[in-house]
Amino acid sequence: MAAIISSLISVLDKNRVLTESRVKERYSHVWQMDQPLNAKAVLLPKTTAEISEILSICNEQGQPVVVHGGLTNLVGSTETNSNEIAISMEKMNSIEEIDSSSRTITMQAGAILENVQQAAADNGLLLPLNFGAKGTAQIGGVVATNAGGLRVLRYGMTRQLVVGMEAVLADGTIISSMKKLIKNNSAYDLKQLFIGSEGTLGVITKVILRLVESPGSRISALAGLEKYEQVVAFLRFMDKGLAGTLSSFELMWHSTYKVLTSPPATVPPPLPYVHNYYVLLDSLGSDQKHDSIRFQNLLEEAISKELIQDAVPAESSTEIGRFWTIREDVDPMVAQCNHTQQFDISIPIPLIGDLVNKIVDELYQIPEVEKVFAFGHVGDGNIHLVVGKSCQSEHLINQINHKVYQPLESIGGSISGEHGIGIHKKHFLHISRTPEEIRLMKTLKRSLDPGNILNPGKILDLT
Amino acid sequence: MAAIISSLISVLDKNRVLTESRVKERYSHVWQMDQPLNAKAVLLPKTTAEISEILSICNEQGQPVVVHGGLTNLVGSTETNSNEIAISMEKMNSIEEIDSSSRTITMQAGAILENVQQAAADNGLLLPLNFGAKGTAQIGGVVATNAGGLRVLRYGMTRQLVVGMEAVLADGTIISSMKKLIKNNSAYDLKQLFIGSEGTLGVITKVILRLVESPGSRISALAGLEKYEQVVAFLRFMDKGLAGTLSSFELMWHSTYKVLTSPPATVPPPLPYVHNYYVLLDSLGSDQKHDSIRFQNLLEEAISKELIQDAVPAESSTEIGRFWTIREDVDPMVAQCNHTQQFDISIPIPLIGDLVNKIVDELYQIPEVEKVFAFGHVGDGNIHLVVGKSCQSEHLINQINHKVYQPLESIGGSISGEHGIGIHKKHFLHISRTPEEIRLMKTLKRSLDPGNILNPGKILDLT
Repeated sequence: MAAIISSLISVLDKNRVLTESRVKERYSHVWQMDQPLNAKAVLLPKTTAEISEILSICNEQGQPVVVHGGLTNLVGSTETNSNEIAISMEKMNSIEEIDSSSRTITMQAGAILENVQQAAADNGLLLPLNFGAKGTAQIGGVVATNAGGLRVLRYGMTRQLVVGMEAVLADGTIISSMKKLIKNNSAYDLKQLFIGSEGTLGVITKVILRLVESPGSRISALAGLEKYEQVVAFLRFMDKGLAGTLSSFELMWHSTYKVLTSPPATVPPPLPYVHNYYVLLDSLGSDQKHDSIRFQNLLEEAISKELIQDAVPAESSTEIGRFWTIREDVDPMVAQCNHTQQFDISIPIPLIGDLVNKIVDELYQIPEVEKVFAFGHVGDGNIHLVVGKSCQSEHLINQINHKVYQPLESIGGSISGEHGIGIHKKHFLHISRTPEEIRLMKTLKRSLDPGNILNPGKILDLT
Repeated sequence: MAAIISSLISVLDKNRVLTESRVKERYSHVWQMDQPLNAKAVLLPKTTAEISEILSICNEQGQPVVVHGGLTNLVGSTETNSNEIAISMEKMNSIEEIDSSSRTITMQAGAILENVQQAAADNGLLLPLNFGAKGTAQIGGVVATNAGGLRVLRYGMTRQLVVGMEAVLADGTIISSMKKLIKNNSAYDLKQLFIGSEGTLGVITKVILRLVESPGSRISALAGLEKYEQVVAFLRFMDKGLAGTLSSFELMWHSTYKVLTSPPATVPPPLPYVHNYYVLLDSLGSDQKHDSIRFQNLLEEAISKELIQDAVPAESSTEIGRFWTIREDVDPMVAQCNHTQQFDISIPIPLIGDLVNKIVDELYQIPEVEKVFAFGHVGDGNIHLVVGKSCQSEHLINQINHKVYQPLESIGGSISGEHGIGIHKKHFLHISRTPEEIRLMKTLKRSLDPGNILNPGKILDLT
């Protein structure tokens, strides 16, 4: 047994230091990797103090570690190799406090998003964070990747909801600022360093998130539009008219909408296939009756102003659910494709229409590309592409990446709006960030983790 | 002439390098200091490239620099001594672009807040940042101090509005991320480092801020309450009922309200002096008529539920202006005092009532303390205190600081909600931050500014 494993067993019980066959059995299949986990060990700490001791030992011995949350990451940020030790946060899943008067929730980093949402709801409050992986994703990972989702337009990214944090540095130092304060300008806001750093600067162990009042009404509608310029104008019109209650504004291009509303998709099309663009929007208000009237009036005004061609509201909570299934279910797209490649790009909102059309046209020039589906959080300027292709060669992957990413450079776009960089996008980081920015990132990484033990090789190469 | 001055003149025109009498004449009186500026030189760059050259020269020669924006800072962050060179941003005041479709505004850091607000308004958009010093404060300073103000409750601190930034590091490296992107998870979000760092980590040269749609309605009201618990319940009630439109929620303690509505204050009291607490709240909506009815209904419901004792709405925009004058004009408080000491503390919202009462009681135990006025952004947990006193001794200042700051430690408060640390609060930083946090701040400062030339001695001492 390696000396480091003995040291780690002295910190954790033996049954919380998994090695060899116990690792491979437990992780016989890792999502998106189709293979068993190949880590040197998997650790199951229960406390921040244990994580501090673990990191102190690993740092002294130059032992690289990878933090495992819900493992729902899409860019390889939690991939672990046989030289690395995984720290699984699954036993640190306690929701420690809900403070209704402060409108905050305090939890260990391993708490599962859906459980946190439920705990908030049980107290008449809403955790606005919401996305498909909520049943598996852990709060620590949500924060470490600055997750986005469907309500960023109104409530912001995860960054905006974090009011308190505890994290452990590579050398075991615990950095704690577990304060329920909305405003705190007492020197550098250190938690910002860890948010979105994908586990490369510290291990997040506890979080305090801000909650909001549960909405008293929800209204959704699907609108059909002819031109992209209308999408931008319609966004501004509804945002102004709904005055603070517009919570989601999602776009589907024609071909995407068609696939998402045709079998095997389960929801039939609420609007016919006669529009170029389909916007699904959501308002979270206080009074269902009044808010419905206002929403309906705004849609009628939008039609009369020719901002949209047509619109259909969801008439019940069941129908709201069906409308959102259309947008959220990616399976009907994936089912159309032999292989897929998925993207998560950010583009200044007025430029999205032309640029996405150009990218799609370019992608169809590649013979192996069979389908391109475009959709996403247009109200936030964040668009997802699902590219279907006939084979899965390295050359083809690169060719497709190049077609999608290269045009972003000159228009000030980003290769990732919400998924992050991990290892899959690392080689394209220069498209979104200048050499000076990347150099400064490396300076930060070296100062906080001089031994390069925290998730090494993710986001940046230090060579 | 010092060698460094010659080098700097070679970068800037001679008339943009002020020295000796030209400094003292131009800055014959520095706000809050009652003395002329005593800097080695004042530089007036026009471009980011010039600032890069200036910093490169200063860094090589170990020359400390202090960036001057509008000099409205309240904690001494821009105080400059005779060994330091001031870089005034006043000539870098260009508003470069308003992009109505992206809802962003791009400017140099020296642009004055009020001018930026106006430019947004001219385009049907709102820059939500708003506070008393807007006619003088520059955007670079607003960002460098993460300014707050009256609408944080809805729109967040400055941090939340910054989408793009250009800054120059101590060695002259330009870090540019001037992107109009709401979501950008492509590796570390470097701009977060500079926001709120009070000029100690880099010089902010350009900013892109997010704008929101101009509201179509504004409603204000003043409410009277008996107990602090009602304030918390009323906040939640109105926030829920107003569903996204509640924009300000400000509290005045009885004695504060009385002074702010008695001569020489110009606005008479909208409610009689029979309540212990007075809340001034503001809603920015879309439809004046409808929103007024909803607001009025909510106030009536709040009275019937005994959340508040009484309330009076502002009936016109003139009256809204008068109501807000009550809350925003600190002069009537200052006029009551021989000398004042002002505070800007953050406290978890449910704890404010008891803690502030305790602090006020403790302050009145000090014989030289004559008046204590409490008020502030209770919806954000950020309270201002104005302490009136009969003299101005160092001992008394310390005694008062101690009485206000010490109780914050055990309840997870902060010595600064929005004003920052500067030099005035540096010696109390340990009350809000742990030794480990302060050590990490020093690590950051040393990695980004190894020569310690950027605003040295502000926020932190590196010894």
